[in-house]
Amino acid sequence: MTTDIKTTMKAIGERARQASHAMAKADSAAKNKALQLIAAAIRRDADILRSANKLDLDAARANGLEPAMLDRLTLSDKAIATMAEGLEQIVSLPDPIGEISNMKVRPTGIQIGQMRVPLGVIGIIYEARPNVTVDAAGLCIKSGNATILRGGSEAIHCNKALAKLVKEGLAGAGLPQDAVQVVETTDRAAVGELITMPQYVDVIVPRGGKGLIARLMTEATVPMIKHLDGICHVYIDDKADNKKALDVAFNAKCHRYGTCNTMETLLVARSVAPTVLPELAKLYQAKEVELRCDDEAKAILAGYPFLASATEEDWSTEYLAPILSIKTVADVDEAIAHINTYSSKHTDAIITEDYSRAMQFLREVDSASVMVNASTRFADGFEYGLGAEIGISNDKLHARGPVGLEGLTSLKYVVFGHGEVRV
Amino acid sequence: MTTDIKTTMKAIGERARQASHAMAKADSAAKNKALQLIAAAIRRDADILRSANKLDLDAARANGLEPAMLDRLTLSDKAIATMAEGLEQIVSLPDPIGEISNMKVRPTGIQIGQMRVPLGVIGIIYEARPNVTVDAAGLCIKSGNATILRGGSEAIHCNKALAKLVKEGLAGAGLPQDAVQVVETTDRAAVGELITMPQYVDVIVPRGGKGLIARLMTEATVPMIKHLDGICHVYIDDKADNKKALDVAFNAKCHRYGTCNTMETLLVARSVAPTVLPELAKLYQAKEVELRCDDEAKAILAGYPFLASATEEDWSTEYLAPILSIKTVADVDEAIAHINTYSSKHTDAIITEDYSRAMQFLREVDSASVMVNASTRFADGFEYGLGAEIGISNDKLHARGPVGLEGLTSLKYVVFGHGEVRV
Repeated sequence: MTTDIKTTMKAIGERARQASHAMAKADSAAKNKALQLIAAAIRRDADILRSANKLDLDAARANGLEPAMLDRLTLSDKAIATMAEGLEQIVSLPDPIGEISNMKVRPTGIQIGQMRVPLGVIGIIYEARPNVTVDAAGLCIKSGNATILRGGSEAIHCNKALAKLVKEGLAGAGLPQDAVQVVETTDRAAVGELITMPQYVDVIVPRGGKGLIARLMTEATVPMIKHLDGICHVYIDDKADNKKALDVAFNAKCHRYGTCNTMETLLVARSVAPTVLPELAKLYQAKEVELRCDDEAKAILAGYPFLASATEEDWSTEYLAPILSIKTVADVDEAIAHINTYSSKHTDAIITEDYSRAMQFLREVDSASVMVNASTRFADGFEYGLGAEIGISNDKLHARGPVGLEGLTSLKYVVFGHGEVRV
Repeated sequence: MTTDIKTTMKAIGERARQASHAMAKADSAAKNKALQLIAAAIRRDADILRSANKLDLDAARANGLEPAMLDRLTLSDKAIATMAEGLEQIVSLPDPIGEISNMKVRPTGIQIGQMRVPLGVIGIIYEARPNVTVDAAGLCIKSGNATILRGGSEAIHCNKALAKLVKEGLAGAGLPQDAVQVVETTDRAAVGELITMPQYVDVIVPRGGKGLIARLMTEATVPMIKHLDGICHVYIDDKADNKKALDVAFNAKCHRYGTCNTMETLLVARSVAPTVLPELAKLYQAKEVELRCDDEAKAILAGYPFLASATEEDWSTEYLAPILSIKTVADVDEAIAHINTYSSKHTDAIITEDYSRAMQFLREVDSASVMVNASTRFADGFEYGLGAEIGISNDKLHARGPVGLEGLTSLKYVVFGHGEVRV
């Protein structure tokens, strides 16, 4: 059985590598045509997609899947329309491939610059969310890559139906159908193979919970563009504008609880904690946010109905829930030290009107996104103007922060000569 | 014993991580001052360095080290002067750290761009070449990184003496002495630890032979900036200018045999092979270059004194010697297919006057450096204008091709807001 999976995955890898050569050469017109054809096919076959999705949903309910997962698995009319629109948005993005930058003439006479090229083959591992199948396929096609998609097994019928439409679009545009392959086996061993085939796969983008990604990290030999979790901070400085502090600290926690760019720990300068924390608590109380505080903050907030003491563990916990840990700090130095110790290097913000502290925070906080007077919730490919997002990286090598089309590309050096030789 | 090494390396890692925070904040003046002080100390203590080097050389001779390795281990007066000058050259390079680019205003009102920051801690693993100790230390200091240097054990006395001068320079500039640490144990287990401490080391740059790097690749859990080998190609198209073809094909092979950007395989368009190969052979014959040819090329070169038949293995062999494999191909398509199959993705060149073929070659050859009408020997940090080179990468993620100061940095997103929140 495992041998079969190995053979199957190896064959998928070989076909993807082969297709990646044609995709790297494909011009923008062909890639955009494929995306438009797929969008049209999705709209045309909405009924077929819903039927496939019903098979998945029936099985999922029979297996007692949680409501939140059922929700993500469901392909509503709106979700189908959004998938098609998402592809059309990708059409409107500039093609990153072939772009040449920094052409400089050297004293030897050669002229040298860098050309943006596809990475090759991208493996995407994700949960039972059919919309990711289309999003990821679209971004990989536009960036000239081949892709191998391994979605959650609960969505297998829907993913197969979508894969058929993607292949139809690729063929209609004269591109290889193997440029997008959905792994059809639901055996988990397929993932183990996918992340250990560096000869066929250039990078893995895992999208899912911390547990999934932590497991992949221990086994993968293919590099990954990933983040484990988002333990994001807002630091309210004693030179903060009060309204900005309240707006941002409330939005960063309460705009959405389950996202990786949600604030999980609030740091407050000791001298303003007695004034700002009670005002903030009024906002949080309306949302029934539990506040896990250090001793000083707890004393200030005595009487708050959802009050608790923070433990050491709280500083490194991603709640993904209406829970917030709060710590008082002496100043920006202590805030930066706390963040560089406990942050997951995702997104951290300072609220201050002090120029030098803002600059110090930007420079010294070692996270993928560092913000002044803005909500951490902005850390997102669309909000950053990347047009789309394949994932978020907390790593420092290659892409960092929200990853759009450029993160699926690489720069190679190109040299224009006139017969020059080294002397 | 192994536990001791583990403890020692962990302590080195912790100190490096600690020092990296101070290095990230250091301003250009302090970093440049450290480099200048180190250069002055090297000149001042030339005698001490030579004495330390003598201890290494005596031991190496007693152990029967090969002449080529002895040569690289030797610290001549010129080598000492070159080390000091190298540091002064790094002083003159622009400081990459803190540079902010692409600041764009988004419709929400936030302004977003990218700031260049150090990677953190760089581990360098290299052979018994004392000059690498100083070069690598200099590049890491300038780019605001802490570094852990693990040079070949044969150079240990010299490396210790150099480390002392580096620490003196760091201290004199008010920077932490732990920003550059030389691993003093010669136990090989130290390398095993260094490449598996991702909590302390952000990237490993291995500099050495293919054997060393291949071994590190199987064990490392820290990402590496590396190349395994350089199997570089020159393709002489049937539209090549004859003089450029001869100049480049001779230079790419014979300028230096032992470098990774030396041509190892020559591809020649079938229709011009009968004219260009005999002319080239005259040049190669003067250098006694062995030519390992496919049947067609061999027939053309019948009578050449150092002629052999190429086997399949030759197409993927890095000779690092006066040996060249030669293959005739139908056209640019076959040349590209051969290169994308056998090249080590280092550097490949086409010689042609045909515009469309030049563009096709640039676009489709999947190597770190792709050249038109120039010698592969130009693939080098200094020749590319990077000012210095820490290594060369054949990988596609992060840095690709010659890696200078920028390759030791990362871009983080910075956001300037005015209290904006997500709606």
